[in-house]
Amino acid sequence: MTDDVEVTPAAGSTPRHLSPDDVGIAQPRDFVYGRPFTFRSGQTLPGFTLRYETYGTLSATRDNAVLICHALSGDHHCAGWHSPDDRKPGWWNNLIGPGKAVDTRRFFVICANVLGGCQGSTGPSSVDPSTGKPYGITFPFLTISDIVRSQKLLLDHLGIAELHAAIGGSMGGMTAIQFSIEYPSLVHRVIAMASTARESAQAIAFNEVGRQAITQDPAWNHGDYPRDGGPRVGLGIARMMAHITYVSDASMDRKFGRRRAPAQGAAAPDAFDAPFEVESYLRYQGQSFINRFDANSYLAITRALDHFDLAQAYGSLEQAFAPVLAETLIVGFTSDWLFPPEQNRRIALALLRSGKRANYAELATDLGHDSFLLESEELYTLVRAFLEREEVIFDFTI
Amino acid sequence: MTDDVEVTPAAGSTPRHLSPDDVGIAQPRDFVYGRPFTFRSGQTLPGFTLRYETYGTLSATRDNAVLICHALSGDHHCAGWHSPDDRKPGWWNNLIGPGKAVDTRRFFVICANVLGGCQGSTGPSSVDPSTGKPYGITFPFLTISDIVRSQKLLLDHLGIAELHAAIGGSMGGMTAIQFSIEYPSLVHRVIAMASTARESAQAIAFNEVGRQAITQDPAWNHGDYPRDGGPRVGLGIARMMAHITYVSDASMDRKFGRRRAPAQGAAAPDAFDAPFEVESYLRYQGQSFINRFDANSYLAITRALDHFDLAQAYGSLEQAFAPVLAETLIVGFTSDWLFPPEQNRRIALALLRSGKRANYAELATDLGHDSFLLESEELYTLVRAFLEREEVIFDFTI
Repeated sequence: MTDDVEVTPAAGSTPRHLSPDDVGIAQPRDFVYGRPFTFRSGQTLPGFTLRYETYGTLSATRDNAVLICHALSGDHHCAGWHSPDDRKPGWWNNLIGPGKAVDTRRFFVICANVLGGCQGSTGPSSVDPSTGKPYGITFPFLTISDIVRSQKLLLDHLGIAELHAAIGGSMGGMTAIQFSIEYPSLVHRVIAMASTARESAQAIAFNEVGRQAITQDPAWNHGDYPRDGGPRVGLGIARMMAHITYVSDASMDRKFGRRRAPAQGAAAPDAFDAPFEVESYLRYQGQSFINRFDANSYLAITRALDHFDLAQAYGSLEQAFAPVLAETLIVGFTSDWLFPPEQNRRIALALLRSGKRANYAELATDLGHDSFLLESEELYTLVRAFLEREEVIFDFTI
Repeated sequence: MTDDVEVTPAAGSTPRHLSPDDVGIAQPRDFVYGRPFTFRSGQTLPGFTLRYETYGTLSATRDNAVLICHALSGDHHCAGWHSPDDRKPGWWNNLIGPGKAVDTRRFFVICANVLGGCQGSTGPSSVDPSTGKPYGITFPFLTISDIVRSQKLLLDHLGIAELHAAIGGSMGGMTAIQFSIEYPSLVHRVIAMASTARESAQAIAFNEVGRQAITQDPAWNHGDYPRDGGPRVGLGIARMMAHITYVSDASMDRKFGRRRAPAQGAAAPDAFDAPFEVESYLRYQGQSFINRFDANSYLAITRALDHFDLAQAYGSLEQAFAPVLAETLIVGFTSDWLFPPEQNRRIALALLRSGKRANYAELATDLGHDSFLLESEELYTLVRAFLEREEVIFDFTI
């Protein structure tokens, strides 16, 4: 997912962190699980930490919790601000807040940085207590199921035995679906957007090129690098390439077309061979990413994505969905070529074939995979309706 | 374009280089131009060499020449074999030969490695006589027009004042079209497949990520590297990524799906996290490329592609095509997402609006951009008909 949404408050206007439809200053917390945790691979950690945020208030009956599941490069900070002078709010701030589609006056929203991540949760950059050094590539092989089971322990810790909904886009959609399979009675509603029941060979191929860029960077050093060092070049290349897959030809053409970048300083190339704007934009995307993301986490999480395959894991999609009790809303975006509408539609069809309550909506956008993150009244309406109706009866043609 | 076509002769069968529908052993030649050559940028070379091959016989009236224009990673060796034990024939051997769509019993076929290339023609890896060292990044800024004007000098040298046709796919299509614009009376027919009148922001973006992978590899060293060294890691990454854009999601899914690679040796990962076949295939693509291609050539030629923009260069597409005398056949492939059918169709439409004889054919394939290189009776029939009819009257609906 992209991270180029910046908010510049107009002079004299209310500071955004005080805006009545924002959740305000968000306070990250750490959940420390002190007992051994066994991964699907059979490998274990002696314990782990999940960094998370919550917004809104848990009701007395503890039945209004909504779990937000983040995508590959996301984190626990999905709404509000960390400080009054933050340049950006949380990554899904347009969807989550008082009066917004995920209404924090009504719901208690929880979002945790995934196990294997690098924004405060235990991951490859965390110190292995048995060696005093970061886990690096000795971190257990991660799967979406491990992410789900670790977050279930967080929910237990918070005293939450039912989720009004689990919501996510891309990897977050996979996570939300996996939750409803592994803990059927926990999850009442699932919204999975721009997701897939398994990655295509092309999606795996793009991830693999990114991993090659990282692991062939000498600074990767078999995963053993200092916290502020590491394969910055390789990670930047991986991110630049991945970014192209998150957007669309049309959106790039509209945003940049073939415009040339303005000349920069004395060393600027002459007009004849001036670089294109899209080039410097991509370089910016790569650079900003390497300052906030750990390369070994990128390897672990993309692997988890590639290995997500519900049909293979459970025998068939229908068998995978057999235990599901949640009602599901699957959302595909017409311009998403990473996890195209057809792959989303296939999830809904398999749920229906398994006798589950499933809905599929296809939104016409030309913004690509990242459409789920972007402003869309249509999406807001859909999410709000699905979350707030007592008896959810949608009637989409699949 | 891919380079994974291998031909293994069946035991006891006729060696392929003696096959009656192949052109046999091809003999590369060098055309040495000894006078200064000025690029569109205004920069000059004191002279240059183009390596080329020819097949068939130039007629007494010198009117049967067909120029083949290669794509980014192609070369002059488009048909036949270099030795009896070659593993592969030239890259368009399925199209060119005695009795094939481009029939060498009838046509005299010429193909030259482009200026700026690295397969025998003068390019960044050639020695600059003024320094005794390779040009590297001091090689003049290359454009498709420079490629065309240098090949025109080769045609002059061969005594060829008219081309029955200029044919190419991808960059080769751009080159063929540019020929018909710059030398209208030279070119009677143009076939441009899987091409575009200008690259989209997305295509530029992919090229830029490849260039970043190369130039951020420390071994690139600002373009100054030994012949057998250089940014092998960066070039391999660039090629792996580019390869994904040459094929399609469907073709990768059919060829590899989510199959795991067989375990290799003792260090093989266990079944749980075994790599996918598509990963090792891509790594093979990257590795084989770095053994045959020069990184600085890759930079120069992708830049030439990105800067190709007929509308920008001539004011509009219609103005660009105003001088054209050739009849044109434009071929788009439905699954090509690098230069999609719509971009090809736009060329034909602009030619028609300029009052030119133009035809557009859209072939349904699911093999992606590289479809133009692959076996297709439909394509062969189209090419043969367009080349051989006395009066070409096609009737395609655009």
